[in-house]
Amino acid sequence: MRALVIDRELCLRTDYPDPQPAPGESIVRVELAGICGTDLEIVHGYMAYRGVLGHEFVGRVIQSANPKLAGARVVGEINAACGRCAYCADGLGRHCPQRTVLGILGRDGAFADFLRLPDKNLIAIPDSLAGDVAVFTEPLAAAYEILEQIKIPPNKSTLILGDGRLGAMVALALRGEGYEVVLGGHHREKLDRLSKLGFTAVPEDQLAERCDFVIDCAGSAAALARAIDLVKPRGTIVLKSTAALGANVNLSALVINEITVIGSRCGRFKPALDALAGGRVDPRPLIDATFALDEAVAAFEAARNPLNFKILVRPA
Amino acid sequence: MRALVIDRELCLRTDYPDPQPAPGESIVRVELAGICGTDLEIVHGYMAYRGVLGHEFVGRVIQSANPKLAGARVVGEINAACGRCAYCADGLGRHCPQRTVLGILGRDGAFADFLRLPDKNLIAIPDSLAGDVAVFTEPLAAAYEILEQIKIPPNKSTLILGDGRLGAMVALALRGEGYEVVLGGHHREKLDRLSKLGFTAVPEDQLAERCDFVIDCAGSAAALARAIDLVKPRGTIVLKSTAALGANVNLSALVINEITVIGSRCGRFKPALDALAGGRVDPRPLIDATFALDEAVAAFEAARNPLNFKILVRPA
Repeated sequence: MRALVIDRELCLRTDYPDPQPAPGESIVRVELAGICGTDLEIVHGYMAYRGVLGHEFVGRVIQSANPKLAGARVVGEINAACGRCAYCADGLGRHCPQRTVLGILGRDGAFADFLRLPDKNLIAIPDSLAGDVAVFTEPLAAAYEILEQIKIPPNKSTLILGDGRLGAMVALALRGEGYEVVLGGHHREKLDRLSKLGFTAVPEDQLAERCDFVIDCAGSAAALARAIDLVKPRGTIVLKSTAALGANVNLSALVINEITVIGSRCGRFKPALDALAGGRVDPRPLIDATFALDEAVAAFEAARNPLNFKILVRPA
Repeated sequence: MRALVIDRELCLRTDYPDPQPAPGESIVRVELAGICGTDLEIVHGYMAYRGVLGHEFVGRVIQSANPKLAGARVVGEINAACGRCAYCADGLGRHCPQRTVLGILGRDGAFADFLRLPDKNLIAIPDSLAGDVAVFTEPLAAAYEILEQIKIPPNKSTLILGDGRLGAMVALALRGEGYEVVLGGHHREKLDRLSKLGFTAVPEDQLAERCDFVIDCAGSAAALARAIDLVKPRGTIVLKSTAALGANVNLSALVINEITVIGSRCGRFKPALDALAGGRVDPRPLIDATFALDEAVAAFEAARNPLNFKILVRPA
């Protein structure tokens, strides 16, 4: 099959072996897949991953022992857990130490004609849900994870740091659930675009007022330092991105101001699917371009342009 | 009066001006005061503080317009809040941006014959509570603050990183409330001493199992990195110390493992006083030596010895 593979470099292969399902797994023909910031990091060495990239997808099951899944249009949770450890027993399969992760860790991903996932990871969706909406289920679930981890009281202020694709997804999710948010970022063009989507999006250097909740979607050491500056004492910082978080940040204010920092990664699909199917979130204005799978390397070039929010790849 | 003053260097002055109470403040004759890790940091430049050191004390009110306080034996909350801002209105005076802090920020401290504090900061204690117990109220309140911020379910595992005075106080507080804890540290002598106090105290390099809660009482970048290694996915790290937290730590595991980090500083006095008065916590085995105020510089030398847990200074 065709597949976008990262090995020493990123290349589209046309002779990649078709996926072979393990017991309890189904084969999905990928309809549409999205490029995420994590994909760009992986190309630069993150996770030391080698294999087929891609973890945001919508597709159709073409081979399955499960009659409820055979032929179904599906999205899929990306963490394939062992199902036997203490984390899995606690319902925390997304943290299973033995897990594989679609296109990220030990499991070929979605920029390909076909992929395999455990049946329990696949969620059937109606044909009425447009592909260019459903393909956002995974990143939107990661945004909704914030609301699974913390409760934001209605009278509290929330700031999103980062005007990129992650910040935009989080803003859509929070707005979808009725929260007012302010977005801060560095790129005038992106802030303008977010403003046109109805968000209060302001240059980061104009932010001055401390907020109860600061959601870091930039992931840089500078952004974390800025989040610490911009969160109220006893406030909460949510970290949504791993990028560059190894750098030197003075954390003593976390203690002095008794700040809570919560790392937040993948989320359950159901809240995101409900929001997409119910129309509370429409992510389509974030799409900049859709490339054929044969043009996937060019799609990655486009995704590297910081002014682009979301680039899709269409194998089918 | 006599006072231990940090200016360019630490020195005992005998001609320091007596404190002059502002409206709503009382004057306390200090009976006994404790040296804390923060005091040692201040001597090395932390907070750029200049003035009388010391914030852990027990004493007697010798001048007050408040008849309930005049003549009372007291301990005192160290944060003097403005009483008018939004934080104060929310009961978060300990985070008031205009606050002064006894012996730490804009307010002379307790290693002196006398100190002044707002009446509302002073808490009367019975004469029956021994001075060498009551003097631990402030550091024990900081330890109890952890339990005000988080709930530790009974079946969850808790690890304290740091075998110093702070780790010991936190261990006493948690044991006082019925929790089983493991302490990890680097100093064989201190671990032995903590073991003799009945704690499970083990060399840090022998810690391997991940815990649900890790309380960092060491405050170094290395300890934070170790806490990140030793906390379970979805677990909680409590940061109790500001020392050296500016160094380079890879925080990406916070996101990947969805770890919560909670900064924790001062606490309300009541839970600590209740534990001391009720005998649930007896801190006296931590006392290594008590120095006269005239010997306060030597007391600081003793406190710098990492094998010592608690050095007291007795002005009266």
